[in-house]
Amino acid sequence: MDTRTGLPVVGMIGGGQLARMTHQAAIALGQSLRVLANDVDESAALVAADVQLGSHTDLDALRTFAKSCDVVTFDHEHVPGEHIRALVAAGHKVFPGADALQYAQDKHLMRRRLSELGAPVPRWAPIASAAELVAFGLPAVVKTARGGYDGRGVFVVNDVEEIIDLLASGAELIVEEKVELRRELAVQVARSPYGQVAVYPVVETVQRDGICVEVLAPAPDLAEDVALGAQELAIRIANELGVVGLLAVELFETPAGLVVNELAMRPHNSGHWTIEGARTSQFEQHLRAVLDYPMGDTALAAPAVVMANVLGGPEGGMSIDERLHHLMAAEPGVKVHLYGKQTRPGRKIGHVTALGDDLADCRARAARAGHWLTYGKALEA
Amino acid sequence: MDTRTGLPVVGMIGGGQLARMTHQAAIALGQSLRVLANDVDESAALVAADVQLGSHTDLDALRTFAKSCDVVTFDHEHVPGEHIRALVAAGHKVFPGADALQYAQDKHLMRRRLSELGAPVPRWAPIASAAELVAFGLPAVVKTARGGYDGRGVFVVNDVEEIIDLLASGAELIVEEKVELRRELAVQVARSPYGQVAVYPVVETVQRDGICVEVLAPAPDLAEDVALGAQELAIRIANELGVVGLLAVELFETPAGLVVNELAMRPHNSGHWTIEGARTSQFEQHLRAVLDYPMGDTALAAPAVVMANVLGGPEGGMSIDERLHHLMAAEPGVKVHLYGKQTRPGRKIGHVTALGDDLADCRARAARAGHWLTYGKALEA
Repeated sequence: MDTRTGLPVVGMIGGGQLARMTHQAAIALGQSLRVLANDVDESAALVAADVQLGSHTDLDALRTFAKSCDVVTFDHEHVPGEHIRALVAAGHKVFPGADALQYAQDKHLMRRRLSELGAPVPRWAPIASAAELVAFGLPAVVKTARGGYDGRGVFVVNDVEEIIDLLASGAELIVEEKVELRRELAVQVARSPYGQVAVYPVVETVQRDGICVEVLAPAPDLAEDVALGAQELAIRIANELGVVGLLAVELFETPAGLVVNELAMRPHNSGHWTIEGARTSQFEQHLRAVLDYPMGDTALAAPAVVMANVLGGPEGGMSIDERLHHLMAAEPGVKVHLYGKQTRPGRKIGHVTALGDDLADCRARAARAGHWLTYGKALEA
Repeated sequence: MDTRTGLPVVGMIGGGQLARMTHQAAIALGQSLRVLANDVDESAALVAADVQLGSHTDLDALRTFAKSCDVVTFDHEHVPGEHIRALVAAGHKVFPGADALQYAQDKHLMRRRLSELGAPVPRWAPIASAAELVAFGLPAVVKTARGGYDGRGVFVVNDVEEIIDLLASGAELIVEEKVELRRELAVQVARSPYGQVAVYPVVETVQRDGICVEVLAPAPDLAEDVALGAQELAIRIANELGVVGLLAVELFETPAGLVVNELAMRPHNSGHWTIEGARTSQFEQHLRAVLDYPMGDTALAAPAVVMANVLGGPEGGMSIDERLHHLMAAEPGVKVHLYGKQTRPGRKIGHVTALGDDLADCRARAARAGHWLTYGKALEA
């Protein structure tokens, strides 16, 4: 507890944009997020009052950090499970726990567990050789069990030759059928240690090159029973896996129904729309969950909400400040979130959110705003 | 400019809750508010990465602070005008400027200037003696020209004897007629150096003991022409006084129409509802204005928005953390803003905001939530 305020201290390991936005939410709750960052220039370290420097793989740094926190949570999923167990053994509260987090860290474990639960997943198998891959059938999707995100570690394979180096690398791999994809959806659910759950409306996520570029909330033209089924599935996974905090369930919509693609156990890009678009943002909800506070209302704050990621564009041209001016002049109602990052082509440097009554209008506004920030010029009609 | 982000640095003099909430808004714009605080335990100093300690009356401290900022603005109105002029003379951008801010610092100057502009004000006069007060007529409202806020420095006087010590103190005083008050209203308007203005919907403010306790947005049952007139008046005052940043115009609704009560040139308690209740919060709008960015959309985000202040209650009882638990369980849709302050009876320690379709329902929810935080028990029906 912070004796100055009488309120708890949440520590977040990792100083990226998720920690940055969680700090904003913590401020409203009377708190100040404590951040363990690698570097003083990381997104959250630029804005939080209370930053410790250290690596998420350094157990000593983690121990020192945890001592000053009421509860520890994560900006990413890269903290080794044995480190989390060591912190818990030392009496610290860490959420999500290692038993849950392993399913967001290891795709092989995740696929096996979801299969055991009878949750809908693509046909899949672990593979250790070219022969096993051929036996599974091509084309298919090969994934490294660990370490991938934003499309990294995911390979659409038509011919074994394409991944012969990967097969030889010793990396643990799984293969999945290439599903007939209609679109991608996602559901956020929060769960507290007490066991309370709160689920958000199902959203559609639009990906490009493996990176989420746009989120539509609520997912348009989704049958109510399918949406309810997706929410129930997310709640069931959160409960079965013992998740505490936010769980994002990424889904493929296929002709045969929904299948689970990935799990993330933290605030997630597919939930950034909730900052203005839901009554309780995913960042506040994550804090509530790890603190065992009662969950907040997940209702939509507007009939249509569209989030567009802002990626770093080509070098040169207008400064980011000038781009922001143009965006604000062109789209006075679009909400901007910049992460304080140096621009680099393809890097997520922020996001924008448009809210309104009409989805098409919101998409157009979010796209125009995002284009100004990425390219420093107007989107051509 | 912050060379790490390519974005400007706004410095705010004063480390209270307005700076705290402005920092939240700055984070979204890719910035981090630089704060000049008196003490490390002030509301904003608890949460901002970039805090300098120093007094707002110490010109050396102000000079040092201003050197590191692209633009300087205020959490309160107590910086001496001559200090502001010295900063501007040294080449710093300071908004609002001293010429505008004097009208928020000195009620005598404000009344005289508004009278010159033909703006509606109560009948008033400067007074220097008991005889002048009697000549003005009693009962009346006597105010110290400088230094008052939250009801301090304001005296409803029925008999001269009641303020005989004040009259003898040498404080500069004005007297105003005691208007027949139907209710109080307020309008927020933002103005940029370029001259762009953006005005928010007119709100009703409910006061108790001179402190704003509740704000209803939009003001219920207000004729459209009266609302438009109030917005036009606020814009005219902002333009005529050369305000840059937020201007709050506090109004009395009387049988004879609206009259101006007070002016504030900064984000203001009567605008806290905008954080969730308007498309652009007053804090983001203030940043946009002082940075000469284009203004944001001021539209309501819900048909009805109610903000209730949270005042420190009697000592003892539940901890603030327990109170927050109860509030969250009882009112999952109410938004909480705690300022990180030690509780003291009557002190503003936070606010809550309820949004929805029905004003009465929002008032009831905000009142219940505020009661939990102030008293640590349920509001009796």
